[in-house]
Amino acid sequence: MTTSNSEQAAIAATIIDMERAALERWGKGDPFGFIEICADDVVYFDPFQERRLNGIDELRALYESIRGQVSIARFDLIDPRVQAVADMAVLTFNYVAEGTNEVTSRWNCTEVFRRDDGAWRIVQTHWSFTRPEGTTS
Amino acid sequence: MTTSNSEQAAIAATIIDMERAALERWGKGDPFGFIEICADDVVYFDPFQERRLNGIDELRALYESIRGQVSIARFDLIDPRVQAVADMAVLTFNYVAEGTNEVTSRWNCTEVFRRDDGAWRIVQTHWSFTRPEGTTS
Repeated sequence: MTTSNSEQAAIAATIIDMERAALERWGKGDPFGFIEICADDVVYFDPFQERRLNGIDELRALYESIRGQVSIARFDLIDPRVQAVADMAVLTFNYVAEGTNEVTSRWNCTEVFRRDDGAWRIVQTHWSFTRPEGTTS
Repeated sequence: MTTSNSEQAAIAATIIDMERAALERWGKGDPFGFIEICADDVVYFDPFQERRLNGIDELRALYESIRGQVSIARFDLIDPRVQAVADMAVLTFNYVAEGTNEVTSRWNCTEVFRRDDGAWRIVQTHWSFTRPEGTTS
């Protein structure tokens, strides 16, 4: 299963860049940067759902419902870490975002990527609040 | 990257059984069923931590602090799903637990397992409340 340190580093750089690019669009109200890098079988958790979402169609419907509603002034990925094998990798980080309304939110995030026909795609997303409230102002 | 359907089913059965066995011990106040199946580089999120925990030593310290404090009368893994490649697999489920105090808690869970020298080990755990409150009585 082992991949070399240089392979690990290359995988990490690739998927962290993908995540940052999707988060840049996210912060401008465009969730579809994520949809474009999700696999059809993606599963998804966030604190507002009653259960896990299953598949790209359920996730797309959620993202359609919040399109244009997120406005982030700046964000930070704290200590992103990637644990990888040849064709799957898990990215974890703490995310801090300051909205244009000056409210700061703090999140835990786990993204699992799978390499499908050479392209890394998200197969699992889990967002939760860091500590239950998650929000300070 | 592809693994056959039968390989996927075998991996799924293995890791769901491991998770259930660890949760059985967890519900009796023994978190160390999880420690025994974690890799040294495990990372961990739950709603009570200020940041991601990094590595088995940080997780062990947390679990030492709650040993004997959890008492679950019954629990259910709702719709467990496994997405696997040859040497990594992500298990997701909603977890509902009824404590011996009759309080029901509802959680989202993501476990990532990696096959290390033939043995599946947890490398990432993410627990969060289903909906922010997570608890009903």
